[in-house]
Amino acid sequence: MTSGTTITLAELVKRFGGDIVGDAAHRVASLAPLDKADSGQLAFLANQKYLPQVDTTRAGAVLISPADLEKVAVREGHNFIVTPNPYAYFARVAQAFIDLATPAATPGVHPSASIDPGAKVAASAVIGAHVTVEAGAVVGERVKLDAGVVIGRGVRLGEDVHLYPNVTVYHGCKLGARVIVHAGAVIGADGFGFAPDFVGEGEARTGSWVKIPQVGAVDIADDVEIGANTTIDRGAMADTVIEECVKIDNLVQIGHNCRIGAYTVIAGCAGIAGSTHIGRHCMIGGAVGIAGHVTLADHVIVTAQSGVSKSLVKPGMYTSAFPAVNHADWNKSAALVRNLDKLRDRIKALEAALETRDKK
Amino acid sequence: MTSGTTITLAELVKRFGGDIVGDAAHRVASLAPLDKADSGQLAFLANQKYLPQVDTTRAGAVLISPADLEKVAVREGHNFIVTPNPYAYFARVAQAFIDLATPAATPGVHPSASIDPGAKVAASAVIGAHVTVEAGAVVGERVKLDAGVVIGRGVRLGEDVHLYPNVTVYHGCKLGARVIVHAGAVIGADGFGFAPDFVGEGEARTGSWVKIPQVGAVDIADDVEIGANTTIDRGAMADTVIEECVKIDNLVQIGHNCRIGAYTVIAGCAGIAGSTHIGRHCMIGGAVGIAGHVTLADHVIVTAQSGVSKSLVKPGMYTSAFPAVNHADWNKSAALVRNLDKLRDRIKALEAALETRDKK
Amino acid sequence: MTSGTTITLAELVKRFGGDIVGDAAHRVASLAPLDKADSGQLAFLANQKYLPQVDTTRAGAVLISPADLEKVAVREGHNFIVTPNPYAYFARVAQAFIDLATPAATPGVHPSASIDPGAKVAASAVIGAHVTVEAGAVVGERVKLDAGVVIGRGVRLGEDVHLYPNVTVYHGCKLGARVIVHAGAVIGADGFGFAPDFVGEGEARTGSWVKIPQVGAVDIADDVEIGANTTIDRGAMADTVIEECVKIDNLVQIGHNCRIGAYTVIAGCAGIAGSTHIGRHCMIGGAVGIAGHVTLADHVIVTAQSGVSKSLVKPGMYTSAFPAVNHADWNKSAALVRNLDKLRDRIKALEAALETRDKK
Repeated sequence: MTSGTTITLAELVKRFGGDIVGDAAHRVASLAPLDKADSGQLAFLANQKYLPQVDTTRAGAVLISPADLEKVAVREGHNFIVTPNPYAYFARVAQAFIDLATPAATPGVHPSASIDPGAKVAASAVIGAHVTVEAGAVVGERVKLDAGVVIGRGVRLGEDVHLYPNVTVYHGCKLGARVIVHAGAVIGADGFGFAPDFVGEGEARTGSWVKIPQVGAVDIADDVEIGANTTIDRGAMADTVIEECVKIDNLVQIGHNCRIGAYTVIAGCAGIAGSTHIGRHCMIGGAVGIAGHVTLADHVIVTAQSGVSKSLVKPGMYTSAFPAVNHADWNKSAALVRNLDKLRDRIKALEAALETRDKK
Repeated sequence: MTSGTTITLAELVKRFGGDIVGDAAHRVASLAPLDKADSGQLAFLANQKYLPQVDTTRAGAVLISPADLEKVAVREGHNFIVTPNPYAYFARVAQAFIDLATPAATPGVHPSASIDPGAKVAASAVIGAHVTVEAGAVVGERVKLDAGVVIGRGVRLGEDVHLYPNVTVYHGCKLGARVIVHAGAVIGADGFGFAPDFVGEGEARTGSWVKIPQVGAVDIADDVEIGANTTIDRGAMADTVIEECVKIDNLVQIGHNCRIGAYTVIAGCAGIAGSTHIGRHCMIGGAVGIAGHVTLADHVIVTAQSGVSKSLVKPGMYTSAFPAVNHADWNKSAALVRNLDKLRDRIKALEAALETRDKK
Repeated sequence: MTSGTTITLAELVKRFGGDIVGDAAHRVASLAPLDKADSGQLAFLANQKYLPQVDTTRAGAVLISPADLEKVAVREGHNFIVTPNPYAYFARVAQAFIDLATPAATPGVHPSASIDPGAKVAASAVIGAHVTVEAGAVVGERVKLDAGVVIGRGVRLGEDVHLYPNVTVYHGCKLGARVIVHAGAVIGADGFGFAPDFVGEGEARTGSWVKIPQVGAVDIADDVEIGANTTIDRGAMADTVIEECVKIDNLVQIGHNCRIGAYTVIAGCAGIAGSTHIGRHCMIGGAVGIAGHVTLADHVIVTAQSGVSKSLVKPGMYTSAFPAVNHADWNKSAALVRNLDKLRDRIKALEAALETRDKK
């Protein structure tokens, strides 16, 4: 990550906060890990494991917390920006360097894009090749629609939304400001709802599934990020709702009429069935499955690959996954689990036998 | 869900069946839940839980089963349409209202679409922006191809098929009448087949994987619905087959040469490995995994997150998933599971000890 | 699978190796299973189960290993090509027949494609409808980009790469020679990285997630194949790396900064969290989940639906999944698992009781 532009520590602090210990006029041009940074680069300490590297780094400056600065042995010749959260500070500076290095996209509509005359696209928006925007859609200021994006009828996109290539947003959905959606994600497909209309049982069963029209939409609040090829279904009658600053990884499925509370993060391959409500500040691990029509309290953590079948009303960490072990050992354990009732019966028999003797 | 058009209960019954109890001339314009409907709206009772709401609803009419009508306390001033399956009736009426409210798409090919001269597209079809239809494809009457859809060589699409944006159908696949495929789904990608061509073991292993050409296709029957970003692979030699009225949710993977029996439903994130045959009227839960080369009987239900590794020859419900519990409690149970053989050995030792005493 | 062209066994052996037993001038035109092949078709024996079919097949020739040829009872009137690996031989011949039967794509750029003037596309490449290639991208000899593919800034595609419809490759990623990527896959989306910048606990928590810029890319070596709708994230600082001849199925998620060793195969719906390194020649089963920041040795096999939470430093097979059983039986076992500590305590009590008696 390199840009031609350099910036002084003083300018960084003016923009992002923090206090300088050392030479405020020192210039940096990019970021690097402690052990690889040179004098033109900014490093950060966010993990105690790397504390010894602060003494030996050649970085032009180190982002550090006040507590960690106290532990540094060698300050001589080193510059620091002291901030309570060096990792978040690093993230913000890194983004600023990227913005400097990235050629600004020219506002306007690519000639190959297909914009319905009944859509409203801000002049500052950047509309890529082969994009489709249907009637009634509203595309906000500085929105970026990459190649192949499809925006359905009446969709509303807030300012600074960025949709990566081949994203599809179905009709009537709403995305708040600064929402990022990665390539291939699908927002607002029909929820999975069919009314059984069958008569008879077993082989005599006749009839069919009748599709339940899905007339809700998806309502996504500000600052949400959604991963590649993730799918979020539209609601059946009311909307599916994703609250502010929710972060969703790749290949996640969110069913119709779910509500995901603000600041919650959902890791890749998780699946959340319909009408489930997840609280604020939750952390849903990778490949977690959550049943439909349940509620998770705020601050619930579900570890990877676990399955949630009932509501979790208390904050805390929940688990139901086993870690893989040697295959033969596992098969022995699995066979014993299948026959746990027999082990229990043997214990019962032993207890009864002892009791019988006691009576003798 | 609102349209400008109203319809009398008499007209509804003429079109969808059922018997009227109350005012056949009453007009409704849309649908709503029992507790929210007003006199211009139609509600339905499909769940005993909501029976008390029938007495207090302000709905213009209620869809109700004959048995439930008997339980209603207050019929005065209420209108009913009596039907054996109010939920399915509701679904059909809801779809009719949507059709009334949705502007009819104009048949024709969007100027940005790319149709090979060797493809055959019905004049009544609606071909969206940036669609690609390759040589030899046949697109049936009233088919709707949304923006960005790609139809490969020789694909056949039956009448009234609707493919949502950015769906890809590989060459040679066949979709029956009224098939719906949601955005981003991929029909007919190569099955996952590679012949090992290696020599030597461990670090001395040399050679490569040789791709097995996948020359079957995917054959999808009438009235199938396929969810967003779902993938159904083409067969290796014969076809992968999806029978009529199968309903598949989002992000489902179906391997090469599978056969999915009619009326079976498969929930989101499920994965079915190659050459597996699933019976008719099965229900496969979310995130279920099914091994390759197995067979499931008709009327099998597999609950969410379970794994099927062998054929299931009897109808019934099958499970292998644990529900998440408090993390610390789980870890204790998991450690005991790993050491179940030791518990069993302790039981054996106790049994032996008691037996020894008996002999004394 | 039929082409108009026929080929003699002698020509096959000249091209693909092996020894002929029988009539070297016999001509075949396609491939078929042993029990269906006629005299113009080539069959193969790769599974002992089908050995008896060799005696009765009407195939024009059979691909067979030297060891299996010894077991054949009836050689009279049969032709054989003897090769150590009939299955791989079959795969290579099948591909050759397909190549003969498939009309050669005409090199060139479809008029609807959008190629940035700053991109470099080989004259032998075949660029489909509605493809987008951004500035600085380099598209190698004979590359095939199907309809709707999007190639970001500065991407490099090696010779003979084939990207199926609607694939997205983000800026800066690199694909080696002969890489195949199936429809809808996304290469190089941002890794899932956010720095927590919150203050306070519980309901008093305020702050936000700060996005960590993902400035690495994805580096994919030669002969890799990637399935439909699979997602491989770009690295945070360094690259995500997929080594040569890795084969990845559909709907797989690979997190940022992973490294997947050469010749490893990953089945559908698997998810691998960030910064995890998988060795060479590993086999990762369907729907397997692997935690972040762990390392798997070469030649590790993880069976379907298992979860890996720690490094696996020895080759071998690892498992943590239960097979589905009758639902009621499972629920009994699951309840006992949740209460295993009570069973253990009862065993302890029994042991103590016996010991007490011994002391008496």
